Amino acid sequence: MKVHGKAMRSVWAEPDGSVGIIDQTRLPHAFVTLRLSTLDAAAHAIRSMQVRGAPLIGAVAAYGVCLALREDASDPALEHACTLLQATRPTAVNLAWALEGIRQALRPLAPSERPAAAWKHAALLCDEDVAINRAIGGHGLALIREAWARKGREGRVNVLTHCNAGWLATVDWGTALAPLYLAHDEGLPLHVWVDETRPRNQGASLTAWELGQHGVPHTVISDNVGGHLMQHGQVDLCIVGTDRTTARGDVANKIGTYLKALAAKDNGVPFYVALPSPTIDWTLGDGVRDIPIEQRDGREVTDVSGRLSSGEVATVRITPEGSPVANYGFDVTPARLVTALVTERGVCPASEEGLLTLFPERRPARGTGT
Amino acid sequence: MKVHGKAMRSVWAEPDGSVGIIDQTRLPHAFVTLRLSTLDAAAHAIRSMQVRGAPLIGAVAAYGVCLALREDASDPALEHACTLLQATRPTAVNLAWALEGIRQALRPLAPSERPAAAWKHAALLCDEDVAINRAIGGHGLALIREAWARKGREGRVNVLTHCNAGWLATVDWGTALAPLYLAHDEGLPLHVWVDETRPRNQGASLTAWELGQHGVPHTVISDNVGGHLMQHGQVDLCIVGTDRTTARGDVANKIGTYLKALAAKDNGVPFYVALPSPTIDWTLGDGVRDIPIEQRDGREVTDVSGRLSSGEVATVRITPEGSPVANYGFDVTPARLVTALVTERGVCPASEEGLLTLFPERRPARGTGT
Repeated sequence: MKVHGKAMRSVWAEPDGSVGIIDQTRLPHAFVTLRLSTLDAAAHAIRSMQVRGAPLIGAVAAYGVCLALREDASDPALEHACTLLQATRPTAVNLAWALEGIRQALRPLAPSERPAAAWKHAALLCDEDVAINRAIGGHGLALIREAWARKGREGRVNVLTHCNAGWLATVDWGTALAPLYLAHDEGLPLHVWVDETRPRNQGASLTAWELGQHGVPHTVISDNVGGHLMQHGQVDLCIVGTDRTTARGDVANKIGTYLKALAAKDNGVPFYVALPSPTIDWTLGDGVRDIPIEQRDGREVTDVSGRLSSGEVATVRITPEGSPVANYGFDVTPARLVTALVTERGVCPASEEGLLTLFPERRPARGTGT
Repeated sequence: MKVHGKAMRSVWAEPDGSVGIIDQTRLPHAFVTLRLSTLDAAAHAIRSMQVRGAPLIGAVAAYGVCLALREDASDPALEHACTLLQATRPTAVNLAWALEGIRQALRPLAPSERPAAAWKHAALLCDEDVAINRAIGGHGLALIREAWARKGREGRVNVLTHCNAGWLATVDWGTALAPLYLAHDEGLPLHVWVDETRPRNQGASLTAWELGQHGVPHTVISDNVGGHLMQHGQVDLCIVGTDRTTARGDVANKIGTYLKALAAKDNGVPFYVALPSPTIDWTLGDGVRDIPIEQRDGREVTDVSGRLSSGEVATVRITPEGSPVANYGFDVTPARLVTALVTERGVCPASEEGLLTLFPERRPARGTGT
């Protein structure tokens, strides 16, 4: 999407053989791009969250392997690169998947053939991510057009989103935000309510920034506000991303998503979840019971970072000394609160049957009878 | 309640004829008391939110009249003091009520008798507030004991609260927190989940501080977390305050209250609202439709104040330049989501019939027939 008026992706190959990224830890207060030239630089970028978002981490990891092979394309070097990169975010499923993919592709090749193949593989991985998100965007766009039609094509379509499921978390387009970029680009009068998304404020910092750069009208609100807006007809639909979706359509996403889904249900507002199909965990059913929720560093709750009036970025503590805090990273929204899932293959009800209609290859084989 | 181990109130008369307050703008990072010696100092304390919370503002305003009369107890001086104090927070209903009360009491008196009568009136107003809150506390305590009994008296009673309805917002005890102080003081194993309450963070700063000072075990959480905790059996009951309750039991309270009430309903967790009866607006029915919701300064959303590692208090901006924000101060929780109202007269269902049972004098007179 656009930054300072020019289209760009969140990761790219530079002509000099390095890899370009945006340092997302500096957003929204400074736009800084970095060139990664070594395996260690790529690992650092992931570990320090200069890049974040499952699809983007996978892509940067694949490029990290490319950078490693520039110096040494032997079997041990390939293994070392994959092990080192995996250790940067040990629980990231997409990272493991991306690394296993490039490792499997390169292992059979002679070391001399590996560097070129690695760059090709990483570029393809990025293009595939873009294509998946673009497809999600197209299917979601139809839902936004419907909401616009329901309003008699008057006023503006108000969409509420939580956290950042935008192009900064992917290679381009994003998941939940892809339909919004398409709607805006085709001239629909869109307005986005952006939950600030405490404690890390990814909405206030990343989503607001990327929507602003692309020119999409938006308003940042505290996470407490969405219910009030829905009570007063100020939200036409909600759309969020997900980290993990169960086979029956329960959705794990950033903490607080569940509260917005409850408010949407209470006020008859459609609540959509956008997801690339690899985030479906076909082995899980009851998400509230079965998805473990990560507890994160309490400093995310006690401390808030931002820009001082001097322009310098600083961190302030908001809680009293000695008050304990708890920091749960995600919650699970039960399928009954989700109006529909938006995948790269289309839109379906948040249910086992709904998902199997789009992904029939996952349907358990039937007994042959007699 | 206790500060540094000693019992205190949020406002008090000093022996030298001045009025003591806690500068709440400095909490939780510094505990600073102030002596107000003039009408202007009292007005400034209210205007600058050194004191906040409807009951406390009313009490400080009454003392402000006392301070004014020390210099001049004439009719014009009394009128001037009331007008000036009312203008500090023009929409505060409790402030108007407190000022009208003291004005009516003093007007018939000779100027020479007014100063002593004013101090007596203000002290009585404070004692009445304390008595009301203590009564709310007693009725709410029974609900906490019930929750503890339901758990088989094992583990701890987990209570979730939002914003600050504690002693800092009143003269002592608080409204929603009064039952919690009584429960803690009688040895019930209480633990309080404190919503940080963006955008002004009254939970993270004031509620956490006052619970910590009194020794009540508590944990500060982002506003997004409560739903997840309720899904996992980590909340035994919710209790919040209210700014305004309608005749049928709809409750206006700090923005985000509605979302927690939805989660409580979805998980079978009791959701109680504590209120002194003067906050009931008997003229209103449908709160969502009829209670106007104040929009506040956007800087409360864009900017966060806290303590730098140097110890200095500073404000940081968290949103991108150019991203608009919206800041709604309150939302309305419909009566259907409220398990019960806790008043100084007892506990009742959140309904017109429930309220009239406790306040029969409000029951419309019946026609006498024929």
